[in-house]
Amino acid sequence: MVEAWLIAPIMAVVSILAGFYIHDFVKKQDAGTEKMQFVAGAIKEGARAFLNRMYKTLAYFVIGMAIVLLVFLPVPIWSTPNIMDNIVLAVGYVFGSICSGIAGWMGMDVATDANLRAASAARKGISKSFPIAFRGGAVMGTSVIGLALLGVSIIYGLTGDPNVILGFSFGASALALFAKAGGGIFTKTADIGADLVGKVEFDLDEDDPRNPAVIADNVGDNVGDVAGMGADLFDSYVASMMAVTVLGSVLGGYLVELPLVYAGLGAIASLIGIFAVNVKEGQDPGVVLNRGTYVTVGLFLVLSYAANMMLGYNIRFWYAAAVGLIAGVIIGFTGDYFTDINKTPAKLTAESSVTGAAVNIITGFSYGLYSTFPPMVGVGLAAWISYVVTAPLGPGYGVYGIGIAAFGMLSIVGIVVANDSFGPIGDNAKGIAEQGGLDHETIHILDKMDAAGNTSKAITKGFAIGAAGLTVISILATFKEVAEVTLGTEVIFDLMNPLVMLGALIGVAMPAVFSAQLMLGVGRNAERMIEEVRRQFREIPGLIEGKEGVRPEYGKCVDIATAGALKELLPATVTAIVVTLLVGFIFGIEALGGYLAGCIFSGLVFALLMSNAGGLWDNAKKYVEDGHLGGKGSDAHHAAVIGDTVGDPFKDTAGPSLNTLITVIGLVANVFLPLILMYAIF
Amino acid sequence: MVEAWLIAPIMAVVSILAGFYIHDFVKKQDAGTEKMQFVAGAIKEGARAFLNRMYKTLAYFVIGMAIVLLVFLPVPIWSTPNIMDNIVLAVGYVFGSICSGIAGWMGMDVATDANLRAASAARKGISKSFPIAFRGGAVMGTSVIGLALLGVSIIYGLTGDPNVILGFSFGASALALFAKAGGGIFTKTADIGADLVGKVEFDLDEDDPRNPAVIADNVGDNVGDVAGMGADLFDSYVASMMAVTVLGSVLGGYLVELPLVYAGLGAIASLIGIFAVNVKEGQDPGVVLNRGTYVTVGLFLVLSYAANMMLGYNIRFWYAAAVGLIAGVIIGFTGDYFTDINKTPAKLTAESSVTGAAVNIITGFSYGLYSTFPPMVGVGLAAWISYVVTAPLGPGYGVYGIGIAAFGMLSIVGIVVANDSFGPIGDNAKGIAEQGGLDHETIHILDKMDAAGNTSKAITKGFAIGAAGLTVISILATFKEVAEVTLGTEVIFDLMNPLVMLGALIGVAMPAVFSAQLMLGVGRNAERMIEEVRRQFREIPGLIEGKEGVRPEYGKCVDIATAGALKELLPATVTAIVVTLLVGFIFGIEALGGYLAGCIFSGLVFALLMSNAGGLWDNAKKYVEDGHLGGKGSDAHHAAVIGDTVGDPFKDTAGPSLNTLITVIGLVANVFLPLILMYAIF
Repeated sequence: MVEAWLIAPIMAVVSILAGFYIHDFVKKQDAGTEKMQFVAGAIKEGARAFLNRMYKTLAYFVIGMAIVLLVFLPVPIWSTPNIMDNIVLAVGYVFGSICSGIAGWMGMDVATDANLRAASAARKGISKSFPIAFRGGAVMGTSVIGLALLGVSIIYGLTGDPNVILGFSFGASALALFAKAGGGIFTKTADIGADLVGKVEFDLDEDDPRNPAVIADNVGDNVGDVAGMGADLFDSYVASMMAVTVLGSVLGGYLVELPLVYAGLGAIASLIGIFAVNVKEGQDPGVVLNRGTYVTVGLFLVLSYAANMMLGYNIRFWYAAAVGLIAGVIIGFTGDYFTDINKTPAKLTAESSVTGAAVNIITGFSYGLYSTFPPMVGVGLAAWISYVVTAPLGPGYGVYGIGIAAFGMLSIVGIVVANDSFGPIGDNAKGIAEQGGLDHETIHILDKMDAAGNTSKAITKGFAIGAAGLTVISILATFKEVAEVTLGTEVIFDLMNPLVMLGALIGVAMPAVFSAQLMLGVGRNAERMIEEVRRQFREIPGLIEGKEGVRPEYGKCVDIATAGALKELLPATVTAIVVTLLVGFIFGIEALGGYLAGCIFSGLVFALLMSNAGGLWDNAKKYVEDGHLGGKGSDAHHAAVIGDTVGDPFKDTAGPSLNTLITVIGLVANVFLPLILMYAIF
Repeated sequence: MVEAWLIAPIMAVVSILAGFYIHDFVKKQDAGTEKMQFVAGAIKEGARAFLNRMYKTLAYFVIGMAIVLLVFLPVPIWSTPNIMDNIVLAVGYVFGSICSGIAGWMGMDVATDANLRAASAARKGISKSFPIAFRGGAVMGTSVIGLALLGVSIIYGLTGDPNVILGFSFGASALALFAKAGGGIFTKTADIGADLVGKVEFDLDEDDPRNPAVIADNVGDNVGDVAGMGADLFDSYVASMMAVTVLGSVLGGYLVELPLVYAGLGAIASLIGIFAVNVKEGQDPGVVLNRGTYVTVGLFLVLSYAANMMLGYNIRFWYAAAVGLIAGVIIGFTGDYFTDINKTPAKLTAESSVTGAAVNIITGFSYGLYSTFPPMVGVGLAAWISYVVTAPLGPGYGVYGIGIAAFGMLSIVGIVVANDSFGPIGDNAKGIAEQGGLDHETIHILDKMDAAGNTSKAITKGFAIGAAGLTVISILATFKEVAEVTLGTEVIFDLMNPLVMLGALIGVAMPAVFSAQLMLGVGRNAERMIEEVRRQFREIPGLIEGKEGVRPEYGKCVDIATAGALKELLPATVTAIVVTLLVGFIFGIEALGGYLAGCIFSGLVFALLMSNAGGLWDNAKKYVEDGHLGGKGSDAHHAAVIGDTVGDPFKDTAGPSLNTLITVIGLVANVFLPLILMYAIF
């Protein structure tokens, strides 16, 4: 019998080919007017320039870390029995970084082609425009699946060593964290700059071509939302695969190949889901997007059940995967309640704007706090149920079950990323249409797509956070498992052990510190951007009056956002890695276990709080802009805009980076575990 | 030899007498002009009315809970071997509620006499006014020490049963939580109402007598800050004593009386510290307040060392107490850095106001996030060091050491509460002086006292949070200890046990939910208040013009704040208790242990974040008002006022209630432990 796990590399290649096919389809579409092409060209150029410069900067970090790994891990080079282990680990790490980088690049490149074509096609109706935007975004999804599965399969096929998959995962995650932080700072620098000067001081509309920061803002959507989110889910996807593989390798049997089989089936389900999504004229694109998700979930459950039967896997693993997947969907949809423009929280937050910005912020923040409860309970229940379901198989099977639940959640990553990337493409398409001077009808169609994108984004964000939660719980389990195997004794993270408690207390504070660093970075950088935008309005004659032929210097704003993001992205990330290592090397593995748990706890809470409060403020503002409570230009609107601006770095910089942060911290701990066991002080 | 622990009841009586003596001293001072007396009378009347109505409402809760305890605990009445146990526990619970209530009442009553006299004496200089304000506040401190120590001593003397002290502590804490939540909602309802209409819409100064909400605002300072903070520290003080007593009773020997001896010595040190604080003309009152704290800390360390030698206690316990105390001081002072008006965070936050309210809020919030790190590490290190110091004495001694560290921190509770109550009295005195039309010179003196009060408040808040952190860790330890004794097996809160993880994930979300409920309560109530203030300005002829003899209807605003606070304080608190019981009865004690730890983690982080960000926004606003960045009335000032208003419920409602919340949750778990062991589902 052919080895079942080969479905993973096969589907990896199919996914990558599907990406190329879609790219080809997108490129064939009509590229609109010259004016539109100019705007789209500027966006594409800015996005590529940023990604190039970021990757160049990160290359130093990757090389430095690769050398550290080469010299010290898994065993210091001077005492290693087999130097090949060190080389393979370092190579695996670099390979992970590269795969993650390529996936981000591919997805973003198609997105910046699709935005123009979607804008152009919108002139002929939503049924023409939607497939371009959605499939354009889907390439980010197929790239994630393709490169992640291909990378893991190659390593598994060549070495069969879970430790190398760990190195691969660490490479992918560290790069994801940088990409997420850098993209998040870029996008919000540009957004705040464009809003506070353009909208508030000069009363321009969103995407007005006179605004010097408008191109930077559009670029930000691509580097922050498309490439950043892709990197984020790439990271969770690979990390959860790593965790299950490590846990499975301890147990033996088919448990190592099982996640690869499920991953391959998830890829099939996602691809079918992606191609099944289509909008007819007059249909609500939001409903269609959700239907695509349901189809994929259903398909995956059927396919994996069938595979389970055919391959003789124990049905309990399928239960665990189903628990995770269903929990992910439920968490995603409850998150939607707290941000949806038609639900109570958004409406009450909008209404509170009448009393001023302060009450708007207090109300939105409070609902953000509320919104943490259901997903935290959901993650906890999913972990517990998947444990209970698989634990009867023997010791070690319970935590393996948690890993499978995480992986089940992430199996449909293709459609999740596709849904998510649809948002910024629709947003960009609208920007291009506005700046290209398209008619009102067309812009209204793109508006509807933009709104659908926002809703599906809220759902996928909840999904991403839930998946990250379960994934890092599994990473904590692998940490313990590997420590036990290495030490040959039981390791317990007992909360009453004061070292565990100390670690947990430090860990709980870490996501807060990380968020603070990113947000202060945005604040500092936004001030520079604001100065530059004001300068251009002051010094470029005829700009604000909209004189024919006068254009702002878009490139300078892109440069400021780029330089600032690159300057600010390293300190926060490096701090997090260094503190993790300090805790481990000073206080030992029990403290480090507590620290990881603490990071997970507060990382999830802050991620949910910030993402949901941010989304809520955004929609409360939109509710006012839709004409309620005095509409645009009213006092309530001004208050709601302040809330929305506070929410910007919450939901697009700090919040979504926290998923990746906790994964990276978990992987750092796992990668450096052998050294910590040797050299920890306490 | 006389029993050493008797120093506790003796010092309790001495403290209470000192309180009466001070009250007498305060009452003898000049009570100022008739206009001042009218204002002060209105404040006193409003404060008494609120406290009376709150206590009446709470009486139902206390009676209900007492019946529950009587019927079910420690053993259900139908199967109890000794019904007296149930009766004594219920009585202890009611007694704790009453002691906490009386302490709050006494402290607040003196405070509302001292504010008027301090205002009046300020006309003769700061050296006359300061002692009145400070000693007036000190009565809250002596009342806390006196009633807490007396209550615990009586129970210890009569029953010698730590379980009854647990009941007493539960009673005190539950009442404290209500008082803190109720007072916090009252004070911020009034404050926001007074600010947003009076200051922002009608450009009135702070404490302008034409503002209908001004008296309610002054009342709020007393019920929120004096009575609320007193109740908060009463609760931590008793809870930490309870924890050490329970842990000590398991170990036997002098370990049960040791905390009582330390408490008595702490009372001596605090009383001396209180009377040593005096300000000469031209001296900075802030410096004097801090000196009082140092004197008390030094004295306590010397006295307790001497007692340790004389009574032959192991020196390791003294080390543990010293670790806790010193950690408390350090945590307090690092907290000060993040809020002090002359330090970088406040200045940068003020400067960011130039870019608008949104950037002000992002910056302040970010520094608030940063500020969580040092105290979390501090609490963790204090717990770990005190454990390491005492653990060599044998099993069970390590966690006892953590309890002693918590108690060491709280030994100087008298001076801490005194420092803290000084703030609102100075604030009130200034309000009375403004409304009484005193001269500029006098108001300037009171301004300086107000500023000193704000600084010392920042320090004591950090102190209170640190102490609560260590206390709840000890409560978690008693929970485990009692569970082990009852079950006769080892109980481990292993983070890799999915029930512990589930509990922790739910627990982490709980403080967020609680904060949200309180802050939404403030928001809702503030809207009512704003309507009422606007109505009065609209409907009372001559009010806004300041026509002689026209007075706003102060009482109506006090009524709105009262009614709203009473309506909002129950749901949040009851939810927290119910969720705790649900977790315990459904998922069992391991989940409940994880849940407690989760509550501690996020409770501390959110308490620090909210208290410090709130204080920071307040001082950033003051920095602008001092004439920087355009001064009062500038755009930067408007932005800073919005930040300050967001910070109001952060720092005065939700933030400081969280200490109490986590203590109450810990005590609920401990009190209901026997039932949970019998009836839990999983």
